[in-house]
Amino acid sequence: MHAYRTHNCSALSKKDVGESVRLSGWVHRKRDHGGVLFVDLRDHYGMTQIVADEDSPALQTLDSLRVESVITIDGEVKARNDATINPNLPTGEIEVFARSVTVESYAAELPMPVAGEQEYPEDIRLKHRFLDLRRETMHNNIMLRSKVITSLRKRMEAQGFTEFQTPILTASSPEGARDFLVPSRLQAGKFYALPQAPQMFKQMLMVAGFDRYFQIAPCFRDEDLRADRSLEFYQLDFEMSFVTQEDVFQALEPVLAGCFEEFADGKTVTPAGEFPRIPYREAMLKYGSDKPDLRNPLIITDVSKHFEQSGFGLFEKIVGSGGIVRVIPAPNTADKSRKFFDDMNNWARGEGFAGLGYVTRKGGEFGGPIAKNHGPDKMAALYDELGLGENDGLFFAAGKESEAVKLAGAARTRVGQELDLIEQGCFKFCWIVDFPMFEYDEEEKKVDFSHNPFSMPQGEMDALENQDPLDILAWQYDIVCNGYELSSGAIRNHRPDIMYKAFEIAGYGKEEVDANFAGMIEAFKLGAPPHGGSAPGIDRIVMLLADEPNIREVIAFPMNQKGEDLMMGAPSVASPRQLKELHLRVVEPPKATPAEKTAVDQAGGSK
Amino acid sequence: MHAYRTHNCSALSKKDVGESVRLSGWVHRKRDHGGVLFVDLRDHYGMTQIVADEDSPALQTLDSLRVESVITIDGEVKARNDATINPNLPTGEIEVFARSVTVESYAAELPMPVAGEQEYPEDIRLKHRFLDLRRETMHNNIMLRSKVITSLRKRMEAQGFTEFQTPILTASSPEGARDFLVPSRLQAGKFYALPQAPQMFKQMLMVAGFDRYFQIAPCFRDEDLRADRSLEFYQLDFEMSFVTQEDVFQALEPVLAGCFEEFADGKTVTPAGEFPRIPYREAMLKYGSDKPDLRNPLIITDVSKHFEQSGFGLFEKIVGSGGIVRVIPAPNTADKSRKFFDDMNNWARGEGFAGLGYVTRKGGEFGGPIAKNHGPDKMAALYDELGLGENDGLFFAAGKESEAVKLAGAARTRVGQELDLIEQGCFKFCWIVDFPMFEYDEEEKKVDFSHNPFSMPQGEMDALENQDPLDILAWQYDIVCNGYELSSGAIRNHRPDIMYKAFEIAGYGKEEVDANFAGMIEAFKLGAPPHGGSAPGIDRIVMLLADEPNIREVIAFPMNQKGEDLMMGAPSVASPRQLKELHLRVVEPPKATPAEKTAVDQAGGSK
Repeated sequence: MHAYRTHNCSALSKKDVGESVRLSGWVHRKRDHGGVLFVDLRDHYGMTQIVADEDSPALQTLDSLRVESVITIDGEVKARNDATINPNLPTGEIEVFARSVTVESYAAELPMPVAGEQEYPEDIRLKHRFLDLRRETMHNNIMLRSKVITSLRKRMEAQGFTEFQTPILTASSPEGARDFLVPSRLQAGKFYALPQAPQMFKQMLMVAGFDRYFQIAPCFRDEDLRADRSLEFYQLDFEMSFVTQEDVFQALEPVLAGCFEEFADGKTVTPAGEFPRIPYREAMLKYGSDKPDLRNPLIITDVSKHFEQSGFGLFEKIVGSGGIVRVIPAPNTADKSRKFFDDMNNWARGEGFAGLGYVTRKGGEFGGPIAKNHGPDKMAALYDELGLGENDGLFFAAGKESEAVKLAGAARTRVGQELDLIEQGCFKFCWIVDFPMFEYDEEEKKVDFSHNPFSMPQGEMDALENQDPLDILAWQYDIVCNGYELSSGAIRNHRPDIMYKAFEIAGYGKEEVDANFAGMIEAFKLGAPPHGGSAPGIDRIVMLLADEPNIREVIAFPMNQKGEDLMMGAPSVASPRQLKELHLRVVEPPKATPAEKTAVDQAGGSK
Repeated sequence: MHAYRTHNCSALSKKDVGESVRLSGWVHRKRDHGGVLFVDLRDHYGMTQIVADEDSPALQTLDSLRVESVITIDGEVKARNDATINPNLPTGEIEVFARSVTVESYAAELPMPVAGEQEYPEDIRLKHRFLDLRRETMHNNIMLRSKVITSLRKRMEAQGFTEFQTPILTASSPEGARDFLVPSRLQAGKFYALPQAPQMFKQMLMVAGFDRYFQIAPCFRDEDLRADRSLEFYQLDFEMSFVTQEDVFQALEPVLAGCFEEFADGKTVTPAGEFPRIPYREAMLKYGSDKPDLRNPLIITDVSKHFEQSGFGLFEKIVGSGGIVRVIPAPNTADKSRKFFDDMNNWARGEGFAGLGYVTRKGGEFGGPIAKNHGPDKMAALYDELGLGENDGLFFAAGKESEAVKLAGAARTRVGQELDLIEQGCFKFCWIVDFPMFEYDEEEKKVDFSHNPFSMPQGEMDALENQDPLDILAWQYDIVCNGYELSSGAIRNHRPDIMYKAFEIAGYGKEEVDANFAGMIEAFKLGAPPHGGSAPGIDRIVMLLADEPNIREVIAFPMNQKGEDLMMGAPSVASPRQLKELHLRVVEPPKATPAEKTAVDQAGGSK
């Protein structure tokens, strides 16, 4: 017989009744029914009920043990009587009568409970993560994460991708977020950096001819932490050669849709091949966001032209001075009180906007100052154009375009939530495409790159030479699910001549390009294929599938929000010998007064 | 038609003759046959011959291009005539007549060639790794690496293991090799460390109840570099709960044997379930090494008792003072000259040993000073005992045990190589087991741990309390293939009481254990399962399968031996702003004189 177990704690069922078995696991719960002791024995696979009575020499030991002790039980499988059968448990028809017990590990008093799903302060959970991970939800989350990654891998391989490891000790990148640095011992005064993403390496793999790369890639950014951001995170990094944007979409859609379907637990998923492609400008107009939540049925409309001449002077003035007026319908709000509309306005002000105007409508009758001043006929014409009915309200976001777009987008989300319009039980994907290559920088009074300088402009050299830069679009795209951006991506600019020209338009000379991006430019001069890719965030995917709003709930050993690993005690002070070997001296920041110190702590320690 | 290709460069064959096709790839080679130009077009998948003559408008462009330019060809598939068919190429029966060509990327003059497999200085190869990786051998090595890892993953999953990611930003470990440190910005003066291995985390996963963990885990050690060691490397890290040592073996053998069989390319592999288990002391005796190459048929024997009384005074003196005499057979060496034996002796001296004695034998007649002094009868008795024949020579490693064992092991390898006895075309695995838990430290004059303090002693508490510490064995094991240690592993000590006792025997108090290993001890006090695992080195596995002696040949983007990434320019100087944010100042090492500097460089920069 095996030293620890003949079966795991999920394996036994009615067919095993009468068998002599050995089980090992954790004492999950104990119940004493007057001389009869019931123990729920838990392992990775499940739970089995152990029973001992006064006939069993195991009783005394089991009775004395604390929960979470680890034991091995020898015993016999018995059928439960009908009244005690638990149909929710795979082992619910049987129990194991304990003949003897071996204690593998005595548990001391626990700093936090395992059984039950009691809320517990995060720092205690993280310090004792090995206990926290025994809890059912966390155990399931971490297993889900593993299964999702395995599924993504399998699906990427089915699409012809090969996984390669790229270096983790690499070079500091001149732009993007803040790098983690790693001091070099062999090269005094120099530093490696941890990769923010393997962007350069994946492009070099394409230049090296590997055609279809992917990696479940660890990435690092030394940024302040949030609920959805950790210092170390994973992305499904991929890149393909000899492809158009559409090829990238066709490669990724089956991977994402397939993986989501596999773990959606009954929720519907946008089918592969049917992810909508929404141009950036259309997304900003209709959803007020480049990461629209398509579960929200509300659509924003620009109604500026209706207010070029209006009794509502404020809007007329806004439109007259180049501003815009956009509206968000609030369907079937005839029975909503004035307070509902005013609360929305107050919310908008609380968010830092000038205010959210509104029109109410009950049985065809308009209400509110905008309607009153604009006049019922003109309002009716506007409603007709929007296809709105006689009990639909309307919210107005007006002002400078950049502000009004943002407000309209936020209001669309808020209205959708308040009116309970967000479709539940679904994952809705879309691509945002046709990002502008350049934008006008109001502060610097010049044209600059609007997103990624390294994307290929649509129309390539011809567009750069002959179009208004502000009209040029890029082969750049985002993949969005339920309002969350999973990743940006692009067809890359692999042509040094087009790269120099694009930078020239943004006001950077050839020398600057050569100085800052020498490695990439040099590689592209030695035979580079057209290529493109993307890198969906894996933690985000798991958060969506696990329906967890906090990234730390889907990572086995996360840091807390101060960047500390409480279980391992990281970061920690280095020894003088270590610092000497690394040619470093720590410069203590000036000591703050107690009051300042509190402020600094609250700001996350940054100065 | 697709923008870049209807087929890849390995896809076309005779059945496609007459088709209009589009291909993209690199210009691998060009051959001008007087008005007819042949181009080998290469992509990730293979090679296709392109042909253009004066009828084709593509001729001029193709003619003008440098090799390694990237092109797209439109053309027609034609059958080759019998004389030009290349049976070694999947596309060898056809060629594509180019109607038109689009240049996707003009290659400038190359710093190193791609076609052919010319030797090139490593620093040039690494600086232009994107070119180097286009070379066939490197391309194959990196693809092999990916396939091996995919195979290992699949096989681990088939064994019931689940892959989990453990943190890369973690805590410095108090022992082992040198850590890479990562300064924390948020916690002034503190440092994270990159993991030397996820040892602590995988044990915590077991304590958390996950049962069977694995990970293709990146590991980091800031040690000086060698041909088989890089700063960053990967291991197949795994751990299992509720297992004995034998369970670990049974889980890993199918994974390793299966993977090796898959990629052995005709070589034989020790079948799963048949890996020999060799006790450490037996390995040290018979092979003079704890990582024996079982392809070498030679076996070392201890013959000390034969020389307790001997005409050969040196050996008698050695044995009399507690030393040993061990022998390595040199079969069928009757026709070897005196020089062969003397060269072996000189080699041993060159390696820092006192010398390697020998006896020659030709047609039954012994030769050499040992045989002469020991006497032919006693020599014949010794030969009989060893089962040696009348034309076999014999080498002698004599001296203090620790020295003689080492010499015997090295001589076994050397003799095996010189006599061409190493079996080729096979991968021979074995487990080394039964490592001693403790050893006597001659310098400190005390008992100390001999290998890993955290392994479970065989016999557990009972052994610690009742046996001579030097007789206690550990549940610790190495997996060895063809003389290379792939990994150590152990059943861990999960019991705080046994841990304290083991450390007490090695002279460390409870306080010291608690101070240094608080996290582990605390976790083990809250319910820990018996567990064990191992972590075979992946780079080493790929090196064996690719038959490459240098680890940099199986890593896509390795550093050079000075720890520099020549392509990315890492490590590099940090900006003053970065250093300030990290609360650090660089302390330049004192400037060395030119002569000192050379010495330092040669020592790898260490001081």
